[in-house]
Amino acid sequence: MTLLLPEKVRSAAREALLRSGVPPGHADIQVDLWLDADLRGIGSHGLLRLPRIVERIKQGLADPKTRGAQTWRGDSFLEVDGQMGLGPVIALGALEAIMDRARQTGVAIAAVGNAQHIGMLAWYAERVASAGQVAIVLSTSEALVHPWGGRQALVGTNPIAIGVPTGEAEPFVMDTATSVVSMGEIHDRANRGLPLEPGWALNAHGEATMDAEAAKAGAIAPFAGAKGYALGLAFELLVSTLTGAALGRDVRGTLDAEHVCNKGDVFIVIDRARAIGIANYLETIRNAVPAEGFDAVLIPGERGRALREKRRFEGVPIADPVWNQIQALAGASEHVQENIL
Amino acid sequence: MTLLLPEKVRSAAREALLRSGVPPGHADIQVDLWLDADLRGIGSHGLLRLPRIVERIKQGLADPKTRGAQTWRGDSFLEVDGQMGLGPVIALGALEAIMDRARQTGVAIAAVGNAQHIGMLAWYAERVASAGQVAIVLSTSEALVHPWGGRQALVGTNPIAIGVPTGEAEPFVMDTATSVVSMGEIHDRANRGLPLEPGWALNAHGEATMDAEAAKAGAIAPFAGAKGYALGLAFELLVSTLTGAALGRDVRGTLDAEHVCNKGDVFIVIDRARAIGIANYLETIRNAVPAEGFDAVLIPGERGRALREKRRFEGVPIADPVWNQIQALAGASEHVQENIL
Repeated sequence: MTLLLPEKVRSAAREALLRSGVPPGHADIQVDLWLDADLRGIGSHGLLRLPRIVERIKQGLADPKTRGAQTWRGDSFLEVDGQMGLGPVIALGALEAIMDRARQTGVAIAAVGNAQHIGMLAWYAERVASAGQVAIVLSTSEALVHPWGGRQALVGTNPIAIGVPTGEAEPFVMDTATSVVSMGEIHDRANRGLPLEPGWALNAHGEATMDAEAAKAGAIAPFAGAKGYALGLAFELLVSTLTGAALGRDVRGTLDAEHVCNKGDVFIVIDRARAIGIANYLETIRNAVPAEGFDAVLIPGERGRALREKRRFEGVPIADPVWNQIQALAGASEHVQENIL
Repeated sequence: MTLLLPEKVRSAAREALLRSGVPPGHADIQVDLWLDADLRGIGSHGLLRLPRIVERIKQGLADPKTRGAQTWRGDSFLEVDGQMGLGPVIALGALEAIMDRARQTGVAIAAVGNAQHIGMLAWYAERVASAGQVAIVLSTSEALVHPWGGRQALVGTNPIAIGVPTGEAEPFVMDTATSVVSMGEIHDRANRGLPLEPGWALNAHGEATMDAEAAKAGAIAPFAGAKGYALGLAFELLVSTLTGAALGRDVRGTLDAEHVCNKGDVFIVIDRARAIGIANYLETIRNAVPAEGFDAVLIPGERGRALREKRRFEGVPIADPVWNQIQALAGASEHVQENIL
């Protein structure tokens, strides 16, 4: 793990994308999203995703140049064919269109299909809420979660992010998968030889396991048991029916380099937020007496935001293999510079 | 507990409301909502709520006659001042307006403030999804849930319901609070002298307890720990900022008969659902091999729906004190009829 200044990472990652045929404006958006995840401590959605996207471009599974095709199907419903474009490029274009439209109509929705992985949802929700609007962001993924009472992964990790303006500079932003833990956490524990918590996962035979290695071939539990399963399944159906995304085990292409990406993404932007009393309410919660075993009562998203501020100055940790790959992909131009110096 | 034919319950409950000054059309809507909850086995949202509403009408805290004031703030944003009207009367009026509007614009939202408790959210989501549209319903409540890491109830139980058409007769409908259990369950266990599960609740001092009686004065845990807290808090902020609803411990009037009801409700209706592959996907889940300790893999909402069918013929259980109260409130007219016979 190397601690690197964000601008150094940004520059190398940008160069790696440019060399793969990504236009500069698109590279800026894509790298900003990944770097933001690493800055906030969500490494699973950070720059470790870069080599996979480069590989997908090489395989013809991702089109780095397209901005997608937007079609209004009603004044407040934007249908977006991502045309295999980069997730944040397609999604941000859609988001800006519906933020604009929601100012007029009060609410607007974008249903995005056929784009690459859109990454950490908080990045989008924060942008909307910082502009004084409310955001609901939903996305689907490969089936990694078992239905409550089932043995096999049949539902995506299907995250949700919500952003709400607070009337102050910093909006409220929460972002969570509907699984009890991420597959990234399972892989991390497997790599470090650590056990899982009870109730987190099943092995390939659908039996409860605390062995992280066994869980990698199995299924993660939904959060909150039956309730989280209901919510995750609802998001899977909602996103699919609006975007035409595949369902369950038919979803592919966010983790591999062999399949077209057929999950979906939905953005809802709501205008007319008043933000009265919200900052005070959040302050009441922050100042609440913590329970036994807790140091403080936290507001969702604020720990990640504080970490981001810290890492902007102190550097962001990037795993050595990831950093080496990025440098290799950014390749010749850096070496040339070094030779010049 | 008496097993009663639904139509007998409906008729008596309707009469009780009419005698409290509720117009017949409004009584039909309100009773249908409560009865649907009892039929589905959600007794906490059923007819046991009737005496409280009658009391609130008597106290001038609920206006049984108003249909609320609807104002379009943009083509797709309906602001509704509930004018202290009956929850389902105000909400259904709003819902029908935005279902209609969403057919044109693709999506429409209703932000409802100042209405009584709107009851079981599934009732609304089912109506929308049965009409081929997608529904997201959010509501807030009195602060009953502690923040993750906190000692005191500061967040509502803030439920969400989602309805999605399946392309078949029966839509997908899920409905859950963001608390690990309902306060109704806590009260039920207290009444029956049963302990709580570990992790469900804190007592009035913010200490973990399994004593249901102690938990009544304390706080319920959010579901899924930090994740459910984040989601419940997000719903509280989202609903408040759009409806002007109170926040946290300032929310009152859904459980008591002393305060104006100041929570809020948000309905989002989305058109353009395609429902391709959803019925097949749900069938795959239904047919999945259950895990150890489970008889079947269930689709959310289907157990309640099956129970409703059964109870429609076999009768619905209503607690004796509730049934006695309803009969007393329906009162004289029944007695007069008996005298005539």
